[in-house]
Amino acid sequence: MALAARKRGLFTEIRGTTRRASTRKAALELGVIDRACETAGEAADGADMVVVATSVADIPRFCLECAAVAAEGAIITDVGSVKGAIERAVFPNMPGGRHFVGSHPLAGSEKTGVVNATPELLAGATCIVAPGENAEPAAVEKLLSFWRALDMNAVCMTPDRHDSILAGVSHVPHLAAAALLAAIPEDALPFGASGLRDATRIAAGDAALWRDIVEANQHEVHKALVLLQGQIERVRELVEQKDFAAIEAYLREADQKRKVRYDS
Amino acid sequence: MALAARKRGLFTEIRGTTRRASTRKAALELGVIDRACETAGEAADGADMVVVATSVADIPRFCLECAAVAAEGAIITDVGSVKGAIERAVFPNMPGGRHFVGSHPLAGSEKTGVVNATPELLAGATCIVAPGENAEPAAVEKLLSFWRALDMNAVCMTPDRHDSILAGVSHVPHLAAAALLAAIPEDALPFGASGLRDATRIAAGDAALWRDIVEANQHEVHKALVLLQGQIERVRELVEQKDFAAIEAYLREADQKRKVRYDS
Repeated sequence: MALAARKRGLFTEIRGTTRRASTRKAALELGVIDRACETAGEAADGADMVVVATSVADIPRFCLECAAVAAEGAIITDVGSVKGAIERAVFPNMPGGRHFVGSHPLAGSEKTGVVNATPELLAGATCIVAPGENAEPAAVEKLLSFWRALDMNAVCMTPDRHDSILAGVSHVPHLAAAALLAAIPEDALPFGASGLRDATRIAAGDAALWRDIVEANQHEVHKALVLLQGQIERVRELVEQKDFAAIEAYLREADQKRKVRYDS
Repeated sequence: MALAARKRGLFTEIRGTTRRASTRKAALELGVIDRACETAGEAADGADMVVVATSVADIPRFCLECAAVAAEGAIITDVGSVKGAIERAVFPNMPGGRHFVGSHPLAGSEKTGVVNATPELLAGATCIVAPGENAEPAAVEKLLSFWRALDMNAVCMTPDRHDSILAGVSHVPHLAAAALLAAIPEDALPFGASGLRDATRIAAGDAALWRDIVEANQHEVHKALVLLQGQIERVRELVEQKDFAAIEAYLREADQKRKVRYDS
């Protein structure tokens, strides 16, 4: 995001901070940021805009820490995968004259780290902006404009709606991929081919990071898991009843539903 | 397979047949085969080796049709995704002096059709050879040698063992991907990102072909579905019990299990 904003000249200065000194140094050397800071407070000091991109559990405290030192009228956002819990922890505690509105750019890569940063990761992807009910409309507009300036398809919805959607399209698929792996006997796994590799790639994430996401979105995740259980039970019943025509129709429907969203 | 065998000069003549005349013509023009035949009987006439690559439901009759005209001592094999049902339908009905042993090369691509054929699709991948208990050992050895000559890692196991393994690593993951899509509300799907795209790619197959596979392997598929249900129920319970430390351990185990087989 910093690379894309820098490439487009959206800000006079882009500061960055992160735990490891070596990462800060690399970000500076790779031209991702204009200035490396040792603390979040230093990076956010007097800033017009702050983007917090840490694990979901750490986002609220960094948002508030940065808001306390940001410029009057500053917009504070985050890029966490859960929005309701963050909104409830941050918005009511914001200092006056600073605006918090959560974001979630729906783009990522299994290649993490600043060395893999590319300014084109976000272009063309969707970014959800999820203001709480008392958000300042002008701040929401400004944030939407920011993501659009990065060539993202920015859309607005409530934090709760975001969390319901993401439980279905991201959080539960992650858990389901782990369950799929757990269900495969150890001695069968060597015979998995490229289909299983792709189907379970989503499970190759940082377990601690995903634990935080599941915890922060536990109610919606639970609801979506129950929906998935219902579908798998339906498939199992069809196999038990030997209704293979219904299995074919079920597979065809899934294929067609998928084609509406993806072409590969 | 034909391209790879031709490139390596394994046979004096490779004949091919398929339903569509245009595909036969393309296979000939692309140098995949030496001779295009209008019927399976013509292609198999006097052949030393026959490979049947049709949908699982059609494999038995083509194997028997080809065996009836193949050379004395010929090996008949297939590349179907299910082995037990095919073995039981073909082996007891084979004419004398011809040998049936099933195969399953674990390699494929979402790009189908002869125009996408590449001689390197099979190299480095695993091929399961699944002889029935009365198979001729020399025929099994010859078939293993054939797949190894294509640079495949050929391994031998019983048809039932094959079917149990494939239910877990292929058939149920396919059904689970369809269930995952079915569980996602229509209006949430546009927000699916690359993780969901990869996780459900396996569901983008030919529904009729997969119906046949599920039918032919129904007992093992049912068993593997029950195992998957148990795992998803376990995850749901952990979320309900708010045991997020156990969720993290579960995700970490899945990630580590996956790494044993895949590095991306």
